[in-house]
Amino acid sequence: MKRVLLVVAYDGTNYHGWQLQPNVVTIESVLNDALSALFKEDIKVIGASRTDTGVHALGNIAVFDTEARMPAEKIAYALNQRLPEDIRIQSSREVAPDFHPRRQDSQKTYEYRILNSEFPLPTQRLYSYFTYVPLDIGLMQEAADYLVGEHDFKSFCSVNTMAETTVRTIYDITVTKEGNMISIKVTGSGFLYNMVRIIAGTLMEAGKGRLLPDKIPEILEALDRTKAGPTAPACGLTLYEYKFIGKI
Amino acid sequence: MKRVLLVVAYDGTNYHGWQLQPNVVTIESVLNDALSALFKEDIKVIGASRTDTGVHALGNIAVFDTEARMPAEKIAYALNQRLPEDIRIQSSREVAPDFHPRRQDSQKTYEYRILNSEFPLPTQRLYSYFTYVPLDIGLMQEAADYLVGEHDFKSFCSVNTMAETTVRTIYDITVTKEGNMISIKVTGSGFLYNMVRIIAGTLMEAGKGRLLPDKIPEILEALDRTKAGPTAPACGLTLYEYKFIGKI
Repeated sequence: MKRVLLVVAYDGTNYHGWQLQPNVVTIESVLNDALSALFKEDIKVIGASRTDTGVHALGNIAVFDTEARMPAEKIAYALNQRLPEDIRIQSSREVAPDFHPRRQDSQKTYEYRILNSEFPLPTQRLYSYFTYVPLDIGLMQEAADYLVGEHDFKSFCSVNTMAETTVRTIYDITVTKEGNMISIKVTGSGFLYNMVRIIAGTLMEAGKGRLLPDKIPEILEALDRTKAGPTAPACGLTLYEYKFIGKI
Repeated sequence: MKRVLLVVAYDGTNYHGWQLQPNVVTIESVLNDALSALFKEDIKVIGASRTDTGVHALGNIAVFDTEARMPAEKIAYALNQRLPEDIRIQSSREVAPDFHPRRQDSQKTYEYRILNSEFPLPTQRLYSYFTYVPLDIGLMQEAADYLVGEHDFKSFCSVNTMAETTVRTIYDITVTKEGNMISIKVTGSGFLYNMVRIIAGTLMEAGKGRLLPDKIPEILEALDRTKAGPTAPACGLTLYEYKFIGKI
């Protein structure tokens, strides 16, 4: 038996998120079905990040166990033949039999993209949020800088979280603009439910001038979801990169 | 009565191209229907570029005549309310009553995008062509340079063209790469049927090392479609920019 790690990219538009749920199609259900059919075993993947409905990924992580003799590196090719074109394995490799993607120290980067122009652009509509209200990325970056570091992010977390602690560490937030497309890249060790989308929604409030950047420390201290900005829509969010720290 | 010019962006994935045809949905048919419903007149647009099935546009051009009193600049907003989200007007303005977009001197830029990586990326699949065969963009640019200028492009044109002459002028071709995404931008005064896609297909042959760049002059001289490379798939092509020259 061997444990195999998959790097999984997907367009989340047509999926009810990552996690297996009854009666809906999720990334996890499609992977389980394709792997089980490929290896004629009952295979269940363990995912690293349970992305929400409509969220995209360039590199989410899944591991699974198999008795198959196919070399781990070849599995990406064989599996892609069986997946719909909006899910594509980017690489496959063997890992230690006790490797668990949610128990390993890791560094995740999410990107939130905002098209900021007078009118929406159809070819960007599936992978960005559109707003015609002008956003000042200088103000957004100023607000973002207050979020970097170890903080209790209770104000930036959906009230229905099941997390034991709401303390998290953000390593970096970088706001850039190319043409009319604003990108917010957030890197951290882990994120609470909806945390990146609430950060994006709050930074947009700062970018519109509705929230002064130096109010961010107060919002953090309040430990109150209602003090932060709105949850930005899912389509703008992409799990950009997933790095494990230490030996796997 | 006034003549109004629209800059039209669209995701061509779900359309049978620009041009009105029986029994299929085209960009032109959707615009005619939306404008006719908006102004309660029988409106028929005149398009600048009849893009093919599956080809995208950031800025194609359409003009139409209307008796409506709505200021031309406001039409973009009103029309977008009635259009599906994969078509969006980028601007609207009044032009001279005799302005015709296909009779006015113009400069068009098309972009052909190629994802060149080991595996396809789902979030790029609708707006680029994928190949895992490594492409050398230096060789592609070298080949492209031979195409710039005034030439008879009969070898780079679908055999079923109805054009009177196959002489065209290309002002510039620029091949760039950002990450794994290769972009070919072609600017010219006008293009023959499938010309940009055949140029893209031919440059890819050069990039793969299957065609020496200095063979391009021979291909041009042959005036024979079979001597050039294959027609690259439609999804990679976007009408990027449309500029009119002179007073309109």
